[in-house]
Amino acid sequence: SKRHTITLLPGDGIGPEVISVARNVLNLAASIEGIEFKYQEVPVGGAALDLTGVPLPEETLLAAKQSDAVLLGAIGGYKWDKNEKHLKPETGLLKLREGLKVFANLRPATVLPQLVDASTLKREVAEGVDLMVVRELTGGIYFGKPRGFGTNENGEEIGFNTEVYATYEIDRIARVAFETARKRKGKLCSVDKANVLEASMFWRKRIMAIALEYPDVELSHMYVDNAAMQLVRDPKQFDTIVTNNIFGDILSDEASMITGSIGMLPSASLGESGPGLFEPIHGSAPDIAGQDKANPLATILSAAMLLKYGLGEENAAKRIEAAVLDTLNKGFRTGDIYSAGTKLVGCKEMGEEVLKSV
Amino acid sequence: SKRHTITLLPGDGIGPEVISVARNVLNLAASIEGIEFKYQEVPVGGAALDLTGVPLPEETLLAAKQSDAVLLGAIGGYKWDKNEKHLKPETGLLKLREGLKVFANLRPATVLPQLVDASTLKREVAEGVDLMVVRELTGGIYFGKPRGFGTNENGEEIGFNTEVYATYEIDRIARVAFETARKRKGKLCSVDKANVLEASMFWRKRIMAIALEYPDVELSHMYVDNAAMQLVRDPKQFDTIVTNNIFGDILSDEASMITGSIGMLPSASLGESGPGLFEPIHGSAPDIAGQDKANPLATILSAAMLLKYGLGEENAAKRIEAAVLDTLNKGFRTGDIYSAGTKLVGCKEMGEEVLKSV
Ligand SMILES: CC(C)[C@H](C(=O)O)[C@@H](O)C(=O)O
Ligand SMILES: CC(C)[C@H](C(=O)O)[C@@H](O)C(=O)O
Repeated sequence: SKRHTITLLPGDGIGPEVISVARNVLNLAASIEGIEFKYQEVPVGGAALDLTGVPLPEETLLAAKQSDAVLLGAIGGYKWDKNEKHLKPETGLLKLREGLKVFANLRPATVLPQLVDASTLKREVAEGVDLMVVRELTGGIYFGKPRGFGTNENGEEIGFNTEVYATYEIDRIARVAFETARKRKGKLCSVDKANVLEASMFWRKRIMAIALEYPDVELSHMYVDNAAMQLVRDPKQFDTIVTNNIFGDILSDEASMITGSIGMLPSASLGESGPGLFEPIHGSAPDIAGQDKANPLATILSAAMLLKYGLGEENAAKRIEAAVLDTLNKGFRTGDIYSAGTKLVGCKEMGEEVLKSV
Repeated sequence: SKRHTITLLPGDGIGPEVISVARNVLNLAASIEGIEFKYQEVPVGGAALDLTGVPLPEETLLAAKQSDAVLLGAIGGYKWDKNEKHLKPETGLLKLREGLKVFANLRPATVLPQLVDASTLKREVAEGVDLMVVRELTGGIYFGKPRGFGTNENGEEIGFNTEVYATYEIDRIARVAFETARKRKGKLCSVDKANVLEASMFWRKRIMAIALEYPDVELSHMYVDNAAMQLVRDPKQFDTIVTNNIFGDILSDEASMITGSIGMLPSASLGESGPGLFEPIHGSAPDIAGQDKANPLATILSAAMLLKYGLGEENAAKRIEAAVLDTLNKGFRTGDIYSAGTKLVGCKEMGEEVLKSV
């Protein structure tokens, strides 16, 4: 039987609850498919801050790097909100992404027929939405230098950041995006602000250069302000979207809210080699932490992405995805996706129901 | 009788059509209120490029600066899309904003009861939305230096921009935003990415400092990714939003699409002193240009903002706003806001109907 080492990073808020449920689901799917997992659980984010004084302890990064895949719950909470930058939970997450060199963030936003009414969009607009945002994750304004605080030529205080992309950074995310689009409906929309920003003009130039390697993929370009509108107007027009770190942060969250069920949405962050990082796109929801109310399905589906994209275990991945659909079909819902006529369950019970279908 | 000089910048695409209609409406409202206008019409954007080789001729900027208010149609079109940066219509618009020093861009997004079904959002989510985005317009990554193309330390090509804000830039937009919120429902939400960007941390620090001058306004802070979600989830939670240039570009377009009728939405760009710049938020719509299909109401409402914010002519402004509502109540609709049971009209006829109600 095959063996893989998985690093579990429960993190903060509802993180530990959803990770514990997802771990059970992973285990069952694995044992059926003849896969064996070794787990190592290490702290990150606020949990790591409280324990060790830093949001990403060296041991955590090392454990993650030496494993085959990393599953993260969520990070952050009111408690650490006022911390200085290097002591923010978020900084731990950014350092983890940087340390694992996971430059490609895949964020599907799918409206399941079972949950179409959860969207704030009209049924005919939301129905059938199935898009994938490919977000560049380790470059751009998140990491660009110079950055910081200073004074300008008039002696006034300033705060500043640098949006910067180099050829190889754009080329490699472009290839991931074209490959992704190829496996989907073959349509890729690159989002930028090339009518204003040089960083975007350069982005567009490289995307067009890499496009020559993928003549079978239909490429289009859209300005980010228009993309933010089009996601509301007609999200079905999109198949695969590729964009930079900050635009991807904004648009993928907007796209996920369009599905109406961000408690359902997983994500995968991948590098050239080495372990991928898999996490639900929702936050740590400190207001419901520890109350067994969280929706574990986004983390369970992240575990499925881990199996598929991280370990190449397609069968186990499909088993989990099917089990989630089955559980929804049976009518089980956590509070965030509950509607009249369905069965309200907590985080643990949802996990147990999924287990029954794995 | 009072006299004002107005610079008209028809621009490109549907710009000339909507400006000509708005001018007639302005004239009638003015003559009833005993105001006299002198107009000067000058080229900008693609129209200026074709005529003079640059997107903002010196004469155009000078004319605008020497007038009391500027009314712009729209700029841009496929024809100039591949132009180099300094020869893009957009560059003309950015230079105009910079030249007029209009740092405060006010973009209302209102769902009129008559048009609630035009939104892709469910009726109960869209109904009653009435928010104002106050966008910083002459700073941030749009204008920050250094910017351009170059090579990094590994000899790789790069494209880069600088997001930068100085104390006075944030303080002055903050004051406009607090004043705006005070005249509305007294709630201001400042949007940033202070969990990652130093420019945003500094933004938040200054917003909080200026907040001390406005104890009667309720201030909150939101990360931009969350704001993009919340606009879809529950746009009614917002009253006034203040944010930087690029986030404002994205969020104001998203907010406008949430109303479902961007053909209805005006904007005002104001400086410390000197003429304001007023324009519909929609684009130049080259696909319907010259076909008498454009919705002139956004430009007519921009003319009303010009009267109110630009010239202090509140009565004439109210007269125009009331005439627009009256025309909608009578059932007249251009194609973009048409629904069964209403009367489809073209750009000119819509203008004539508004004139009847002024
Ligand atoms: C927590 C924050 C640093 C992070 C980001 O901005 O990337 C989050 O919003 C996300 O999208 O994963
Ligand atoms: C045309 C473009 C330069 C402009 C901007 O980005 O500011 C437009 O999108 C707007 O919002 O007015």
